[in-house]
Amino acid sequence: MLPLLLDRTATAPLPAQLAGQVRNLIVAGTLRRDDRLPSSRALAADLGVSRAVIEQAYEQLLAEGWVSARRGAGTFVAAPPGPGLGRSTDHRAHRGAQHGAGRAAGSTAPTATGRRHLDTGTPWVDVRHDPGWRRAWREVSTAAPPPGYDDPRGLPALRVAIAERLARTRGLRVDPDEIVVTAGTTDGLRQLLPELPTGPVAIEDPGYRAAAETVRSHGREVHDLPAAVPLPAVDGPLDGVVAVYVTPAHQHPLGRVMPAADRLALLAAAERTGALVIEDDYDSEFRYDVAPVPALVSLDRTRVAYLGTAAKSVLPTLRIGWLVAPPRLHEAIVARRLLTHTGAAWPCQRALLTLLRDGWLDKQVRAARKVYAERAPRVAAALAPYADLAGPLAGMYSTWLLPEPDAVRARDAARAAGFEVNLLSSYARSSPLTGLVVGFGGVSDAELDRALAALTSALGARA
Amino acid sequence: MLPLLLDRTATAPLPAQLAGQVRNLIVAGTLRRDDRLPSSRALAADLGVSRAVIEQAYEQLLAEGWVSARRGAGTFVAAPPGPGLGRSTDHRAHRGAQHGAGRAAGSTAPTATGRRHLDTGTPWVDVRHDPGWRRAWREVSTAAPPPGYDDPRGLPALRVAIAERLARTRGLRVDPDEIVVTAGTTDGLRQLLPELPTGPVAIEDPGYRAAAETVRSHGREVHDLPAAVPLPAVDGPLDGVVAVYVTPAHQHPLGRVMPAADRLALLAAAERTGALVIEDDYDSEFRYDVAPVPALVSLDRTRVAYLGTAAKSVLPTLRIGWLVAPPRLHEAIVARRLLTHTGAAWPCQRALLTLLRDGWLDKQVRAARKVYAERAPRVAAALAPYADLAGPLAGMYSTWLLPEPDAVRARDAARAAGFEVNLLSSYARSSPLTGLVVGFGGVSDAELDRALAALTSALGARA
Repeated sequence: MLPLLLDRTATAPLPAQLAGQVRNLIVAGTLRRDDRLPSSRALAADLGVSRAVIEQAYEQLLAEGWVSARRGAGTFVAAPPGPGLGRSTDHRAHRGAQHGAGRAAGSTAPTATGRRHLDTGTPWVDVRHDPGWRRAWREVSTAAPPPGYDDPRGLPALRVAIAERLARTRGLRVDPDEIVVTAGTTDGLRQLLPELPTGPVAIEDPGYRAAAETVRSHGREVHDLPAAVPLPAVDGPLDGVVAVYVTPAHQHPLGRVMPAADRLALLAAAERTGALVIEDDYDSEFRYDVAPVPALVSLDRTRVAYLGTAAKSVLPTLRIGWLVAPPRLHEAIVARRLLTHTGAAWPCQRALLTLLRDGWLDKQVRAARKVYAERAPRVAAALAPYADLAGPLAGMYSTWLLPEPDAVRARDAARAAGFEVNLLSSYARSSPLTGLVVGFGGVSDAELDRALAALTSALGARA
Repeated sequence: MLPLLLDRTATAPLPAQLAGQVRNLIVAGTLRRDDRLPSSRALAADLGVSRAVIEQAYEQLLAEGWVSARRGAGTFVAAPPGPGLGRSTDHRAHRGAQHGAGRAAGSTAPTATGRRHLDTGTPWVDVRHDPGWRRAWREVSTAAPPPGYDDPRGLPALRVAIAERLARTRGLRVDPDEIVVTAGTTDGLRQLLPELPTGPVAIEDPGYRAAAETVRSHGREVHDLPAAVPLPAVDGPLDGVVAVYVTPAHQHPLGRVMPAADRLALLAAAERTGALVIEDDYDSEFRYDVAPVPALVSLDRTRVAYLGTAAKSVLPTLRIGWLVAPPRLHEAIVARRLLTHTGAAWPCQRALLTLLRDGWLDKQVRAARKVYAERAPRVAAALAPYADLAGPLAGMYSTWLLPEPDAVRARDAARAAGFEVNLLSSYARSSPLTGLVVGFGGVSDAELDRALAALTSALGARA
């Protein structure tokens, strides 16, 4: 019998507790590949909980890639999963079981064209007439700002609130003093880079362009980590690099969840080479049905630095994020910040504190998730006849594989209709993948329909 | 007769117009060293203005080091001024004729000691009960945030307001589209560094520690530019560097105004070597009586990048500044910012817009200047018997030269009384200058008195 014990007095829900314990047994090697897990009925009886608890936990582990379900045979510890792209063929993915969301890809600033941008970084948010939003800024107007420069780690009360939220929504338990409030994800990366030894940084390809550009702006080379190939199949994935930047919860822009085998291979490679793993957890809130996949950092606090952001859940231009770095790096970053005055703006920190404290952020995330869950299948229904979905259907964008000429034709048709859609090739450095990255957060329902009509009419007319 | 013409319909005051035209004649070589300027009576008659206009203009040029007054003989184009430190012996300086202010020196964040910090970066500001401040954030609460990420140059209306203020207070005429809103001075530097060729950056020594640390964090070496030696006497000041970071309006932390000869030598060296001059104009607002010295950038837009900040005039933790870069760099910075999402927080930009629009900032600067003008002589009266003033008496701090053991003893006495004062040696890299840097912006009058009493009693007891 497995050493599992659920604690009804703990704050973590029972399915999350169980999933976490099974995950730890796999990581520790107690459970091995192809081991069969107990049936939900048997385990429910053993643990004295309802079958629903077990089923939810297994569903979670399945979504994360730690286990696989074989029809009629039960649930097994997963074999190293196949290519990441292949994961989208898992039938569960098409039910929206996986997660994801969008982020700015670099071309989202206003253009002279006046086109609406179906980008990956504009969340569904309308804060203006929201009483909670107004209250947050009213509090800023009357709160006492710190005298002079402030704590280089960020507003203490905000770090407490962020720690609480990380524990509740990401199962990540950190002390508020281990958190550094940043001005967003790329700012977190900027804080880390000066503390790393000389050398290049690996970034997923296709991947987050802002990260690559930030690495280059610090005079470092960017190495390509193929995002669509299982990590164990990559030759010496971290050879010669001082860090690797990954988006395990929702690969940007392909959308896959990093499979368990890749997570373990990545940490093993980090241990072997001494490279830092930088986990960009930008949109883990936006799963449609199952709980978010646990953060990589919760498997290894000494080799993984964790980056989060309020850009997708509150407002991209709030410019607030958070960084949990390994202790040695944390101390160096705080010391340097004290000297360089590169903290996040106090008014924005103070406003986010109110939004967290009042439950506004939770409410906002729930509302946005509902909108995305409704829009994602509409996008899929329109594009699936013409293109292959690159990742699970989730978050505030989806990525569709197409030959480049077709993608360009569709993009041009959208432009003619007044919409800007990103080509997948614009995220690639050496990856040959092509297609379209279609964001659906920052437009109205009617606009989305018009944009989809333009795309499908161009794709339907393909030669 | 000199080619001078004053325009009564222009927005610039007549003395500022005249000072600017004389300055241009010196830069152009029309007026040369030791040339005598017309008497104020004669020039007033020529130009059809009152003598007061001429006298104000000459006073301004004198404060800037472009001209010198010889008793009974008149006003002459200045010989290359002597060592910067020597300028503080000009009797005008002791009347508070020059300008300056403080800035954070790196140790201003809260410490566990609970000591009040007499630092250079904490301005006199109490925004909490200010109706204008509250209005600014109320407007933030109801304004429409930009959809997605915003203009990488910053909020257009804010750039218009900043351009208006630069023209009015700094005589600097730029198009709003030439401005990039930053998250503060060091952020402006961070935007510039990736656009420079490989190589070290020269920074004044003693100098602004945050700038040196920022340069190092981008993997570049820092070269020392002696701050207390006239630039023409420095051997190849810009040899081998790609940029030089200077604080011409108020050298940080020595306080001198960069003399005219140094300004010209610096620009000539920049022209010869191709190095970029980075002008940190952090506190030009805080002169006590004469108008601020014009910015270096107004002499050469192609070789000088200009950095300004709201840290001293509004709040250090607002994290808003501005950058005017030479056109080629400006375009590269905007393109990179579009990719890296490193803009300033929208709420803070929007609040600053209101503060500028409503005249709040002007009022705040006037009020702070009055407080500093009252406190600076009190600090001087206390410390002058024991130490030499390193620069003009101005701004929100003053710097006092002392042997290191005396400075350390005084610092320790202040600590025992509950105050933290910075050692001048902490700003030095290879400079042998020692003493105390005494900020007086961030404390109450009673606290300042107690801190001064602690310092003077230790200094009075010196062996």
